[in-house]
Parts: sequence; C-alpha cells; structure tokens
Amino acid sequence: MTSRSSQATARPSTEGRAVARTQTLLQGENGVGTVRKTTLPGGLRVVTETLPSVRSATFGIWAHVGSRDETPSLNGATHYLEHLLFKGTERRSALDISAAIDAVGGEMNAFTAKEYTCYYARVLDTDLPLAIDVVCDMLTGSLIKPEDVEAERGVILEEIAMTEDDPGDCVHDLFAETMLGDTPLGRPVLGTVDTVNALTRDRIARFYKKHYDPTHLVVAAAGNVDHAKVVRQVRRAFERAGALTRTDATPIAPRDGARTLRTAGRVEVLDRRTEQAHIVLGMPGLARTDDRRWALGVLNTALGGGMSSRLFQEIREKRGLAYSVYSYTSGFADCGLFGVYAGCRPNQVHDVLKLCRDQLDQVAERGLDDEEVGRAIGQLAGSTVLGLEDTGALMNRIGKSELCWGEQMSVDDMLARISAVTPDDVRAVARDVLTRRPSLSVIGPLKDKQAARLHDVVA
Amino acid sequence: MTSRSSQATARPSTEGRAVARTQTLLQGENGVGTVRKTTLPGGLRVVTETLPSVRSATFGIWAHVGSRDETPSLNGATHYLEHLLFKGTERRSALDISAAIDAVGGEMNAFTAKEYTCYYARVLDTDLPLAIDVVCDMLTGSLIKPEDVEAERGVILEEIAMTEDDPGDCVHDLFAETMLGDTPLGRPVLGTVDTVNALTRDRIARFYKKHYDPTHLVVAAAGNVDHAKVVRQVRRAFERAGALTRTDATPIAPRDGARTLRTAGRVEVLDRRTEQAHIVLGMPGLARTDDRRWALGVLNTALGGGMSSRLFQEIREKRGLAYSVYSYTSGFADCGLFGVYAGCRPNQVHDVLKLCRDQLDQVAERGLDDEEVGRAIGQLAGSTVLGLEDTGALMNRIGKSELCWGEQMSVDDMLARISAVTPDDVRAVARDVLTRRPSLSVIGPLKDKQAARLHDVVA
Repeated sequence: MTSRSSQATARPSTEGRAVARTQTLLQGENGVGTVRKTTLPGGLRVVTETLPSVRSATFGIWAHVGSRDETPSLNGATHYLEHLLFKGTERRSALDISAAIDAVGGEMNAFTAKEYTCYYARVLDTDLPLAIDVVCDMLTGSLIKPEDVEAERGVILEEIAMTEDDPGDCVHDLFAETMLGDTPLGRPVLGTVDTVNALTRDRIARFYKKHYDPTHLVVAAAGNVDHAKVVRQVRRAFERAGALTRTDATPIAPRDGARTLRTAGRVEVLDRRTEQAHIVLGMPGLARTDDRRWALGVLNTALGGGMSSRLFQEIREKRGLAYSVYSYTSGFADCGLFGVYAGCRPNQVHDVLKLCRDQLDQVAERGLDDEEVGRAIGQLAGSTVLGLEDTGALMNRIGKSELCWGEQMSVDDMLARISAVTPDDVRAVARDVLTRRPSLSVIGPLKDKQAARLHDVVA
Repeated sequence: MTSRSSQATARPSTEGRAVARTQTLLQGENGVGTVRKTTLPGGLRVVTETLPSVRSATFGIWAHVGSRDETPSLNGATHYLEHLLFKGTERRSALDISAAIDAVGGEMNAFTAKEYTCYYARVLDTDLPLAIDVVCDMLTGSLIKPEDVEAERGVILEEIAMTEDDPGDCVHDLFAETMLGDTPLGRPVLGTVDTVNALTRDRIARFYKKHYDPTHLVVAAAGNVDHAKVVRQVRRAFERAGALTRTDATPIAPRDGARTLRTAGRVEVLDRRTEQAHIVLGMPGLARTDDRRWALGVLNTALGGGMSSRLFQEIREKRGLAYSVYSYTSGFADCGLFGVYAGCRPNQVHDVLKLCRDQLDQVAERGLDDEEVGRAIGQLAGSTVLGLEDTGALMNRIGKSELCWGEQMSVDDMLARISAVTPDDVRAVARDVLTRRPSLSVIGPLKDKQAARLHDVVA
C-alpha cells in the first residue's frame, strides 16, 4: 500500500511569487493514493490524495474553529457562520452557489463540530476546477449580509427544533453536557434558541474574520486530482480574494493540552413523551492523540461496534430488549468520552442498563478473550480498507489529519497499529477507562420512581 | 461507457448438470462494469457487474416479496422474516453469521420495502466467497426457531417505537396511509404493534416457504467479481440446501398492472408533542415503468431535489421557514406517489404550505423554464455517474432492475433518456401530475383551529 516518506521538495515558483513548499508525505501504490502537501505563502496548507482509478474528486476546506472556541454568549456562532457562508459573495448569490454545483450533479455540504468546521463538494473529476472556485469563493468572500443573517436565523431555529425531535440524536448532546457541563466542549454545536436569537450580524462577522484566516485553514482534495493543479487553482482563488498577502505567516498548530475529566456519577434526565427511552451511559475516555487509542478502538469494537459485539448479542440478539445498541468513543485534543447508547421502551430501561453495566464491569475486570480481540482487529482493518473507495472519506481523512494531528499516517501504518494491539493492551485500557465511575443521560418518559433508581446504575 | 448487447451464450455445464444460461447484458468500458446474467436450473437468476478497478464487492439477494404481499393480519411479516433470517441456520448460529462478516470488516444488512426485500454484504473482494456462503446460507437454511421468533418480536417492537420517535420519518408512512388507505400498499412495512404481537412462528415460517423459492429470488453481485465464479459458488450453496431441484422452474415475472389512485383532498393529522410539524403534501404520481418517469424525475429535481431547487429557494433560502424541505417520487409496479416534505415550527405551517401549493400550481400551469430544465438534467446525469463508484449502489441497481423490470439499462442509455427530456415533456407531465388534487399528512402539535384550516390547502 503506502509507505511514509517526507522528502521536502522546495519548488521555484514559476510565476516569480513567494515560494510554496511541497512535500510528498505518502507514496501511493496498489490502489492507495499518493498524499502530497504544499504550504502556500500566507500560511495556507493544501493536502491532496491522488487516486487515478476513480472518476470523481472531493474538495474540502477545513477551518480550525468549532463550538469549543465560543464564549457562552457566542454559543452557536461557528455553526451559524457555516450556514452564512452559503449565502453569497461579491461574485455569487446563494442561488449561484448552489446552482453551480447542482448543475453538474455534485454534492455540496458542510459540517460543524466542536473542534473544526468543514465545507466540501464531491464532483466528477472534470468539474473539480468549478468546485474549487465555488468553495474557495464562499470561504474567502462571504458578505454576511444583515438580511441573510435574519433569514438564516429561522433556518437554524428550525434545525434546533428538528434535532429536538430526534431523541436518539440529541441524547448525545445531553451526554456531552452531563460529562462536560457548561464549558466550551459541553455546550451544543447548534447553540440554543436563546443564544441563536441573541447573535448579531456584527459578532458573527467578527468571528468570521478572526477564524477564517488562511493560517487557520486546511485545503484537502482527494480522488482523481493533480496536486500541482489543485495548488495553482486554490492559490489563484485565495489571491484573487487578497487572502495570501502575509507571506511570512505560518499555519496554526494543532490543538493540544491534556485535561482530566472529573465528572463522575452524574445523572441527567430529560422528560419527553417519546415511545422509547434513549440512554447514554459513559465515562471519560481518551484524548485523540493518546497512544492507547488503538487498543481502545479494539475494545470499543468488541464491546459495541457491530452485530457480533457483546452489547448487541446480550441486549438485542439474546433478549430482544433494544433495536439500536452500540458503544462509541469521541476523542478531542485534550480529553475524550466513551459511551454506550441504547434505545428501549421505558419499562426495560433498568434491564438494559444492568446488562450494559455488567458488560462494562466484566470487561474492566477480565478484558476480552483472544478470539474477540482477533475479530475486532479484523473488523477495524477490513473496514479501514473498505473506507478507501470513497473520495469523500479520503478527503476527510487527510484534511482532519493535517488540521488535528499536523501529520499524515499511511494506511499500512494504521493497519500495523491496529494489528499490533494485544489482549493485554486491551485489558490495560479497559482496566483504566471502564473502571472510571460512569455518568448517565436519558431522554424519555420515565416515571419518578424509575428515574430515582437511575442513580444506582452510576453508583 | 457501456453499450447494450444481448448475445445469449448457452454454456455447457462443466459438471454434467442441467445447463445454466449466461448472457452478457451490458458490455463495460471506461470504468463502467460489464453486466452478465445467468439463470440457473431451478429458476435462480444471478446478475453481476464486474468493475476490476475496485478492491471491494457487494453481494446481495433480492426477494420478490414486500409488505404489499401481506394480508391485513400478516402485516409486518415480510419485515419480521427479514430479521429472523439473521438468527441462524443448521450450520450457523446468529453469532456465527454476524461474526463471520464482522471478522473481515464487512458490512452486512438488509432492507424490506413494499415490493421487495434485500439482504447484502459489502466486503473486500478476497472475502467474497465468505459473503456468498453466509448470505446464501441465511436465505436458504433459516431455522426460524420459536425462541428466536419471541426474542425478535421484542426487537421489532423497539424498532416500531424508534420509528415513532422520528416524526420526519414516520410522516412518510402516514402519507402512504393517507393516499392508499388500509390496502397492502398503504400499510406500514414494519406492521403495527398489534399485528406484530399476533404473528405466530408457523405463519411466518409458511410465509418464508412461499416467498423464498429460488424462482422468487435474484442474486446480484457488483465490484471486483468474476461472474463464472460467483455463479459457481451460488449454485453450490443453493444445491447444498437442496434448493435447485425443480430444474424446469422459471423465474417469476416482474410485477405489473396499472391502477389509478382516486385519493384526493384527504387530510390526516397525528397530534404529537413535537417541536416541529412534519408535513407531506402530495398526489398520485407515476408507476415505475411509466415512460414519463424521466420527465417527472427532471421535474422533481428542479422543484425540490437540491439546494437550487424552487422549494428550497422559496421556503428555506429566501424566508428561512424550514431546515429540511424537498420533493420526492415513489414508483410502484402499478401506481406511484409524488410528495413534498417540509418540517417547520407549527406557527409556520400555513405559510410553508401556501408556498408549496403556489409552486406546485405555478409549475402545473407554466412548467419550468429552459435553464431550470437544463440544470436538473445536469444534476441527474452527474449524480448518476457519481453513483457508479459505490459497489453497494451498483449491486442495488442491477438487482432491483432484474427483479422489478426484468432487464438492465446501461448508464449511457439512462443518461440519454435523462438528456432527451425537453421543457415540453416536463410541462406535459407537470400538467398531468401536479394538477391532481393533493392530500396532506401532518405530524405535530397543531391547534384545532390550525388543523381545521388544513383542508383549504387541499381544496
């Protein structure tokens, strides 16, 4: 597949401008792409993965800003801004933006998370120059017109209402709040009705100016792409917007730090007249740079990552107590979460929680057996390779790697790290993470007596 | 891309058994796959699309059975059975089935619709023989043990409860009921709590025996697959189960017929304490074999198929009245539906409905302008080609084509049909479909006065 390499190749600029540094980070073969990186004067990073066997390309721009960069009164500003960047520039109206990508059958969207925001378009390779032009224009030239801010406020309030109507989704927001409280990481990405109603055009415009400097952005493209051409087109688009003038600027470093979450034994219940109770039981996990994340990945897979996992077998397969049950990890720069989700009818909440708790306790004490570890390693390895066929997934991988780790890891290296996990590694990480005292978030119509008993689960 | 071809190549069986007929239906080039079909003795069809540039394969089996094949008291049996086929055979327990695919990182799932059921696994190409063995074993050798029927009843009741908690999803079930009433097509795929509680092991087992005969199945595989090998492995698996003994059996023909839906002006409201009201406004559409479906596809795309579509622009972009708003078509063998969905806060329901109705009326009267038609054609064509990179989508295309149309259409032919649509074609289909009197389904917390006014919208 690929092998790591890092020859820096300083290239003379053909147009007599400041020199851009280009490196080949990963050399592709056997259907895996070659990953290259250029840092443009102005501090803008461009990473590409070239996979000539496909006919499509996904182009994205990652911004080093997420809801954790918001003060309490700015909560929701990152996401609000993400919406507003679709509303128009000097060169294009909102309709021009969407019509340009729709007309070629492309898919354009964006997502805002706690630590980053990403805008992307997936198109046929022949339409890549168009996608680059449109997405770069949106990012560098948004007008943020007052009337658009007002219209979009309504859209975001609808989005909040829609999310509230999906308890299996918003229980994860509740769990973040349970674990992290009223802190930047604990607050919801969408903001609240109150904060969204209070945000002004000027505050959002200032937020834009502050966080969309080229030094805060990573451009990523994957698929049938030519690195040099992508760099040239991106450079032209950013220069046109006057955005690469600080030639000595250097890219912002990945977030770092380490933080110990002390949350333990908290229970949060949102009373809703839903059919199911939606539950997350979890505890502090690992930061995304933690070396034990590979072992935690294996643990998570065996515990709740598929139909053969322990939780699925015990709760759904053997007893029919839930339709959806799984575990997951979230890794942030400085901390992380480990959680188990289940949705079940309210009268079964205690049975389901007892089974979850039993499994967590058993694995914390004894780890997993060799067969489970082997299967989980196979599952992670196979799904990693299967994930390489989608240019959107490739773009996400290289863009997020650059922004969050400041480096690229080859697929071979990833597979080697996964395969190297031993039952002892899993036992060690289980003994650490799964013995942390859990907290619990529930959305559903629990009776008072039932709700009172929830505290026993996290005792 | 591909060109149509239909040389039937009768092949002598190498093993002295009854002869299987193999045809090359579409000849692939330029990254588009070659489609081949073999009908095995016993009436089992196997279609494959070979795309050597990928490293994965998706293997699926389509059964010619859906909820429209259920009597009222059997409602939910097709879907219940789909769950039970994962529960084990003589050779494999439920855990064996899921562990086999999990261990190689594959993705295995199934879906039940009103006219078909599909089981599939997506794996690395080297794991295709395993996927074939597991999926064929599930389909031909399910034990349907009484204790599994009981455990799975709980899972399905949870699935029904989960769906009820997602009003943006279940409003589509409500719309089908509004339009089609208490008929096989109008009833929900999942069944109801009452029908699921009443289904017995014996009735489900009889349903299985009746509907999973090889003549009712289509096997489909796409990706880096070898047609002859797939046929050999499938044949071996089915013969092992004693399922190909009726050597003179012929495959079941696609469903056909034509039916005029006379539903008009109905309003159904489900009162729920949700944040948004979830709305579907729609009318009878076209059957999936209707030649005007290409023009309706263009109309649907321009009206509500993307961010540049009329409904998105009028309701979300300009006025911020909804987050999610789109139109869609459903085509069945003998009839179809055309619908517009929007989710918005209850106090905006009437504004949103008025805007939807105005757009439908305007387009019914005047059609679309040339630019809109051109953009919609580009959008459909581009997304069709972009859809070819996913082996799961390819498997779905050839499997569903074989089952529902009894023929394969090349991508070139599809693109030609899309591109041939003229503004006059769109005007004609709009004048027919969009002038049909609409009906309306709403889930949400409407006040009585608001609910009463809904009848004006469908007047």
